Amino acid sequence: MAELKGACIIGQSGGPTSVINASAYGVIRTALDNPNITNVYGAEHGIVGVLNDRLFDMGQEDPKELELLKFTPSSALGSCRYKMKDPDEDDTDYKRILEVFKKHDVRYFFYNGGNDSMDTCNKISKYMQKVGYECRVMGVPKTIDNDLFGTDHCPGFPSAAKYIATSCMEVWQDAHVYDKGMVCIIEIMGRHAGWLTAASALAYEYGCGPDLIYLPETDFDMEQFLADVDRIWKEKNNVMVAVSEGIHYADGSFVSEAKTSATDGFGHAQLGGLAALLANIVKERTGAKVRGIELSLLQRCGAHLASETDIEESFMAGKAAVENAVAGITDKMVAFERETVDGRYACKTKLLNLTDVANYEKKVPIEWINDAHNGVKHEFVDYALPLIQGETKMVKVDSLPRFAKLKKVLA
Amino acid sequence: MAELKGACIIGQSGGPTSVINASAYGVIRTALDNPNITNVYGAEHGIVGVLNDRLFDMGQEDPKELELLKFTPSSALGSCRYKMKDPDEDDTDYKRILEVFKKHDVRYFFYNGGNDSMDTCNKISKYMQKVGYECRVMGVPKTIDNDLFGTDHCPGFPSAAKYIATSCMEVWQDAHVYDKGMVCIIEIMGRHAGWLTAASALAYEYGCGPDLIYLPETDFDMEQFLADVDRIWKEKNNVMVAVSEGIHYADGSFVSEAKTSATDGFGHAQLGGLAALLANIVKERTGAKVRGIELSLLQRCGAHLASETDIEESFMAGKAAVENAVAGITDKMVAFERETVDGRYACKTKLLNLTDVANYEKKVPIEWINDAHNGVKHEFVDYALPLIQGETKMVKVDSLPRFAKLKKVLA
Repeated sequence: MAELKGACIIGQSGGPTSVINASAYGVIRTALDNPNITNVYGAEHGIVGVLNDRLFDMGQEDPKELELLKFTPSSALGSCRYKMKDPDEDDTDYKRILEVFKKHDVRYFFYNGGNDSMDTCNKISKYMQKVGYECRVMGVPKTIDNDLFGTDHCPGFPSAAKYIATSCMEVWQDAHVYDKGMVCIIEIMGRHAGWLTAASALAYEYGCGPDLIYLPETDFDMEQFLADVDRIWKEKNNVMVAVSEGIHYADGSFVSEAKTSATDGFGHAQLGGLAALLANIVKERTGAKVRGIELSLLQRCGAHLASETDIEESFMAGKAAVENAVAGITDKMVAFERETVDGRYACKTKLLNLTDVANYEKKVPIEWINDAHNGVKHEFVDYALPLIQGETKMVKVDSLPRFAKLKKVLA
Repeated sequence: MAELKGACIIGQSGGPTSVINASAYGVIRTALDNPNITNVYGAEHGIVGVLNDRLFDMGQEDPKELELLKFTPSSALGSCRYKMKDPDEDDTDYKRILEVFKKHDVRYFFYNGGNDSMDTCNKISKYMQKVGYECRVMGVPKTIDNDLFGTDHCPGFPSAAKYIATSCMEVWQDAHVYDKGMVCIIEIMGRHAGWLTAASALAYEYGCGPDLIYLPETDFDMEQFLADVDRIWKEKNNVMVAVSEGIHYADGSFVSEAKTSATDGFGHAQLGGLAALLANIVKERTGAKVRGIELSLLQRCGAHLASETDIEESFMAGKAAVENAVAGITDKMVAFERETVDGRYACKTKLLNLTDVANYEKKVPIEWINDAHNGVKHEFVDYALPLIQGETKMVKVDSLPRFAKLKKVLA
């Protein structure tokens, strides 16, 4: 493959994670060190920054600040949720991207995101091929949802899983102190895939986790749920429940959006989300003290609990994207393959076609969900446990996080 | 003072914290090592366990498990919210307690809790004096609310403050990524005192914290709040707000309980708490993307982020209670006095009369709140910062917390 000299762009897109910046750092550090890459630009707010020609010159950043990206949650360059049109219908954006690429002699484009971002990546890659502009395009995966196709797991998921497991264990301790007992309902992210909610099973595995776990991979039945809670309440005088935000009835409607359901007993829009809704229903039925807790953004930005394995693998994904692109490869997403080396978990990168990855959602295998659809099997624990190992080396000042501060000098 | 030999009871009461078990361990370890204390009993669910004669023999626990209490959140012995009657009106409970004390030759009673618990402690102490049963009674403070009278700060507050500051910093990163901007409203515990909500100012001090902070020490004005949010939204296209769960209107009614207020625009009971309520109001007014986050139980059980200073001081409070009681002192609560040693923060214990402490709530000084009542002054940061220093030495197995497992053998 011919050597290709030029600038590169790294963009971040979609919901942030605790370690998306570790991947960005993997791209930036590796690109800055590579003689074929003449300039390293960070796009402000992902593809929106390319469209607006808002590119930051990463070469002007203090290397020490860049290094802190490994431990800085959220998307340091800014993110976006921008849906690219089909270029056959409207190629305005694509023409503009080509213009900006030409202006800065961009020959490498790295896009760090989830399903939608891989779709963006794929469309740009195919357009550049069509118009004959040589630019190597690589997707760098991230999503706490863990739902990208073809990869053993996704950067970002392990750290969120670790946050969820640890928080469940701590809340379990808190929710088990009173003589009167308590029902505690924890709402966890994941609209269509239950990987994150399943991570609460790690807490159970270590002695203090939810008695009941409901994933969006199966239909939710309110009466069965109430019967489950009632049974455990009578048995233990204490119930902990983990629910995915995406649980839905058999007709596909989200439980969180139920407005006039006879079972919920309320005739108005819910403000406080699913946990509050279920807490109220359980309280009405059982009379128990009930608390609903929504882990909300905390679970995806809790970098102080990030998994070291996740940080290092996220960095590795960014690094692999640059190395493969420089070696002549394009139109791929970096993915992970799990290995067993000396009987222990190991992980190496592989490459997938962008076309195969874009817009496909990988769900928790139905065989890993128990028959009653209120828990996950040990296979999930075996899968997830190696991923959460090791602690972050987050830098602190006065015992508070010291996050990267970028100068963001425009190119 | 005459030497007093006999058994001791340690009980935990009220809402748990990340470090209440560190205080319990301070009592248990010191008592087990003291020759004057013949047996060390842990009361199940505080005073309720005494009334039911449910006492665990701490001498039968594995010392290594007891040591893990320093890093185990929540009340390992169980807690209660049991209001003792005035003994002049109904002394049934007091007679029962005396009976149990006599049965086990209990001569030392240590009670670990907040305002209400100190009231319980005080009533028991005075009753025992009245009936002439020699028993030395000591209160060991704990409360994340930091509202106990006469002490520089309360064990439990620093760790919750650190959790809040760290979480605000991380959420700030997450809430600042999108090109469209966002309003983020974080609800923090503290019904009558704003110490915990003020802790969010630590995040601001370190570059990523709330623009606006509302405490229950001042009256809340919905129109002024909306004007504040609007002003910052226009200026920065991003607003972070921290509110205490206890903010109230000038008439004393809690904002969280507003059901038919014209300003909130909803005519029904709120399910999701204050953050969801305010988020909806702001969304309606500004049209901005808004998210309400309730830190809920997480802030009081997040032991993985506990302050080492808090852990050590909590242990010290328990230790001091035993040492003083054995030395002949009774009817006191252990409190903290801040010192400056070699220009650095230090803390020593002192003793307060239980009568002076019981039922009094200490609030954030009004001079520490800014004139607009939407932020705190630097004095608060100077006060709180030394308290959150140092990291926990929490033991982990497979990168998840390893909490104490007590056998709880009944006496």
